[in-house]
Amino acid sequence: MLLNVDRLSRLMASDGLHAVIATTAENVTYSSGFWALTQWVRRGPQTYVLWPAPQLGEPVIITGTSMLDLIADQKPWVRQVRRYGEFVVERDETAALDDIDQHQAELYVLPDERSPFAALCNAIREGGFGAARIGVEELGLTPGYMAALREAFPAAQFVPGDGVFRQCRAVKTEAEIDRLRRSASIAEQSIASALEMAGEGATERDLALAFHERTVREGGFPVLGCIGFGTRSAMTNVQPSDRPLRRGDIIRFDVGGRYAHYRSDIARIAVLGDPPAKTAAYHRALHAGVRRAYEILRPGLRACDLFDAVVETVRREGLPHYRRTHVGHGIGLDGYDAPNLSASSGEIIEEGMVLCVETPYYELGAWGLQVEDMIVVRADSVETLMQTDGRLIML
Amino acid sequence: MLLNVDRLSRLMASDGLHAVIATTAENVTYSSGFWALTQWVRRGPQTYVLWPAPQLGEPVIITGTSMLDLIADQKPWVRQVRRYGEFVVERDETAALDDIDQHQAELYVLPDERSPFAALCNAIREGGFGAARIGVEELGLTPGYMAALREAFPAAQFVPGDGVFRQCRAVKTEAEIDRLRRSASIAEQSIASALEMAGEGATERDLALAFHERTVREGGFPVLGCIGFGTRSAMTNVQPSDRPLRRGDIIRFDVGGRYAHYRSDIARIAVLGDPPAKTAAYHRALHAGVRRAYEILRPGLRACDLFDAVVETVRREGLPHYRRTHVGHGIGLDGYDAPNLSASSGEIIEEGMVLCVETPYYELGAWGLQVEDMIVVRADSVETLMQTDGRLIML
Repeated sequence: MLLNVDRLSRLMASDGLHAVIATTAENVTYSSGFWALTQWVRRGPQTYVLWPAPQLGEPVIITGTSMLDLIADQKPWVRQVRRYGEFVVERDETAALDDIDQHQAELYVLPDERSPFAALCNAIREGGFGAARIGVEELGLTPGYMAALREAFPAAQFVPGDGVFRQCRAVKTEAEIDRLRRSASIAEQSIASALEMAGEGATERDLALAFHERTVREGGFPVLGCIGFGTRSAMTNVQPSDRPLRRGDIIRFDVGGRYAHYRSDIARIAVLGDPPAKTAAYHRALHAGVRRAYEILRPGLRACDLFDAVVETVRREGLPHYRRTHVGHGIGLDGYDAPNLSASSGEIIEEGMVLCVETPYYELGAWGLQVEDMIVVRADSVETLMQTDGRLIML
Repeated sequence: MLLNVDRLSRLMASDGLHAVIATTAENVTYSSGFWALTQWVRRGPQTYVLWPAPQLGEPVIITGTSMLDLIADQKPWVRQVRRYGEFVVERDETAALDDIDQHQAELYVLPDERSPFAALCNAIREGGFGAARIGVEELGLTPGYMAALREAFPAAQFVPGDGVFRQCRAVKTEAEIDRLRRSASIAEQSIASALEMAGEGATERDLALAFHERTVREGGFPVLGCIGFGTRSAMTNVQPSDRPLRRGDIIRFDVGGRYAHYRSDIARIAVLGDPPAKTAAYHRALHAGVRRAYEILRPGLRACDLFDAVVETVRREGLPHYRRTHVGHGIGLDGYDAPNLSASSGEIIEEGMVLCVETPYYELGAWGLQVEDMIVVRADSVETLMQTDGRLIML
């Protein structure tokens, strides 16, 4: 199961919540195992999961009728379903249905609850939450629905629930870590494929194409492809152009895709030919910063202390003027999960967190350098999700 | 320019709006030409465009400091920029900067307006809209910001602006149509690549992989890959599995990607071997329905009349019990733009609309059939964006 049930229960208890309602694609998938296509590829379509506190009933998925086939096919762990909206699927009455089709047929005859809002209200009412304290994730909810819920259930208390999900997802289950491991591995393989193209005259676009093709071939989905040469590598979010690779150029990769809905986000630097001494020295310092994180990342560490240690290391190891606002972030269903590894973050590192630790350095007119690894925090060690280390790659 | 400026001005005038504020990735790109990475790959990050009515000032982009490199690189037509948040970019003072880096350097020294909300308030105040009527797209706005805007500007009127953008985007500019044409073409090429794999024993996943690989190779991004064999083709949103292709199987493609941010969404049916007479007859009827749309699609037609004509044709041509809730939709930056080609839609077809016209038919226990074409409505004709027609493909 992707969901960390115990953690969610504890977080709900400490907020006094009788139920939480997931409304974004990420948290619907996280809490139910259900991946509702429309919600992932567009903004607006409404699918929810109502998740009760322990002993307060069964969780329920609320989705559009046209999404029911995916429930039958995916068999999410949340079994109770409410549907809304008209959608026509015929049936060959002479054909024996297989399990999936039989399940579909059963779902299509559930009562049509007309609209997402009506179905959500029914779930709240019939679940016995009409006077409960409910955490509602607002980010995925149709504007106006939060106010309408308060009006429909004056005895209930609706509070923002985004934070509960964010905190819950900060610590990954092993099922999530397995997906993240594969996602990270695909990103590394894709960098390797891109580097095979990296001869003089190849363009940023050529490398990006090789990168994304490999991602797809490995079963991933392209998301992030910041690949820049020379001075363009200093652009934080550089989008591939027709700039050709020249001898001496830095190539910066800040890249990642999605595998089984889980993101990757890593960075590596290559150079065509021998790098100038300054480049190599700076890169060594940035790399040392990330290596330092491996040494000290343990449950109980404060994120701000990790930040200080990493920045301090980079400065000491050869980049004395190094400044950053953060040195990384969690990663999971979203590219930026909790915690935030910033100077001011009081968040505490916990066992099971999966972190992107990064030390980017952008110098306009010169180049950008960056090391970014994906790392799992274990009880008394760390597990890297990387197969390569972040050393400067000489081509 | 992607934006249809005249249409937006007319729509704003008819709603009495002095300005509109775009908040979703789609409408920010649409109104400014600026593609803000974080907003496209995550939910939550805030980038806005404040667009004044004619004669009421210059439009402005409001974005995070870490996104400014993309403004310098993309040169969006909206030139005024406000930034918020800390982000460190160093500068090699000895290096001569090229135009892009020079522009970056200028953007980084703009005042830091601290938060998206503060920057938005400054733009409203300094733009002279403190007592204006402003359409705000709510879908992309951080929950709570709409209420906070009303509190910050008690003399202004903030009304939902989502509809204005939706209506504006319904009619495409030629720049948009060019992108949609290429996007549609990539989807067709990708189906062709998938079909090259379609021998006995190949899996749905094999075909999906070939499909997405081709999309990437042509410069597109994978989005939608519903590819199902046999009875699985009756699943509306079928996600590729390890089901192997067998002689006699239907293959349903409901697929599309993104090219230069513009979506494609088309459907084709292939069959391995000779199809049963019923399958072929039903498919001919569904195809005739889409062909009928080509004949009657003209500016001035009501969407509901198009719906009736298409459904009526399918019934008459061999599928007498055909039922649908819609026969298509607009397409553009989003997979479902206006208009909605439904039975109850009073929307009027206009010149420049780009429509997906589709006649899906799902029969549980049998198969799903579907024809879906992308079509441009011209002054007194239609232009298809398809290179193949939707006939049943015999393999």
